[in-house]
Amino acid sequence: MKKKQWWGGEIRLKALGRHVLLELHECDCDILRDPVRIEQIMKESAEAAGATIVQSVFHQFSPFGVSGVVVIAESHLAIHTWPEYGYAAVDLFTCGEDVDPWVAHQCVAKELKARKKTSLEMKRGLFDLPVLKHKV
Amino acid sequence: MKKKQWWGGEIRLKALGRHVLLELHECDCDILRDPVRIEQIMKESAEAAGATIVQSVFHQFSPFGVSGVVVIAESHLAIHTWPEYGYAAVDLFTCGEDVDPWVAHQCVAKELKARKKTSLEMKRGLFDLPVLKHKV
Repeated sequence: MKKKQWWGGEIRLKALGRHVLLELHECDCDILRDPVRIEQIMKESAEAAGATIVQSVFHQFSPFGVSGVVVIAESHLAIHTWPEYGYAAVDLFTCGEDVDPWVAHQCVAKELKARKKTSLEMKRGLFDLPVLKHKV
Repeated sequence: MKKKQWWGGEIRLKALGRHVLLELHECDCDILRDPVRIEQIMKESAEAAGATIVQSVFHQFSPFGVSGVVVIAESHLAIHTWPEYGYAAVDLFTCGEDVDPWVAHQCVAKELKARKKTSLEMKRGLFDLPVLKHKV
């Protein structure tokens, strides 16, 4: 990302991470309350995006609802489901050039059969390149 | 959250979750590359915020950098560190009235000795209350 400045120089911005926040509405409620299926969907989505899975943790709540995280070598994917409202909150945080969070976004939305969705991408760790120096 | 409409009625909005995205700069680099200390800080921050810890996963990358997630009964806390840049990306996602992500925010920023920080809160699962009906 380059931005021309008034003095004729430029700021070259680099983001360490890309974070897609995904709101899924009117999903399949039976899927939303199935922790095994949700974990499978999240792992498949991570692999489709080109990520390397490190570890995953999924938990089913009483009476229903699933929380889970797939830690990937390139950050993490997280999901929280509210089957009673047909809703899931999904976070797709990736770093590096080889993983595309928007591929995971498509997979998760499709597999949960979401009829409505909204999403936005946040840049995480945005640095002006001349300032980005190794300190270690 | 109430908003008066032109017809005299009102929309009553309810968010299922609160998600604080925290950017920490100029942190203590030695802490950022210590997976044991990072896990301890994230768990202590979860407890300070009033959360119930379900499980945690932390991973150290080569040559340095830590990724970790604390799954809580009220959603999750996540961190990714770049010690080489003195930077950490932190996510504090909570639901319910009894957990305050901003308390966790203060703890994490203090313990990582961040000299600069930016943060914002996103509402997740924002519903108009009359539409919010149990489907299960």
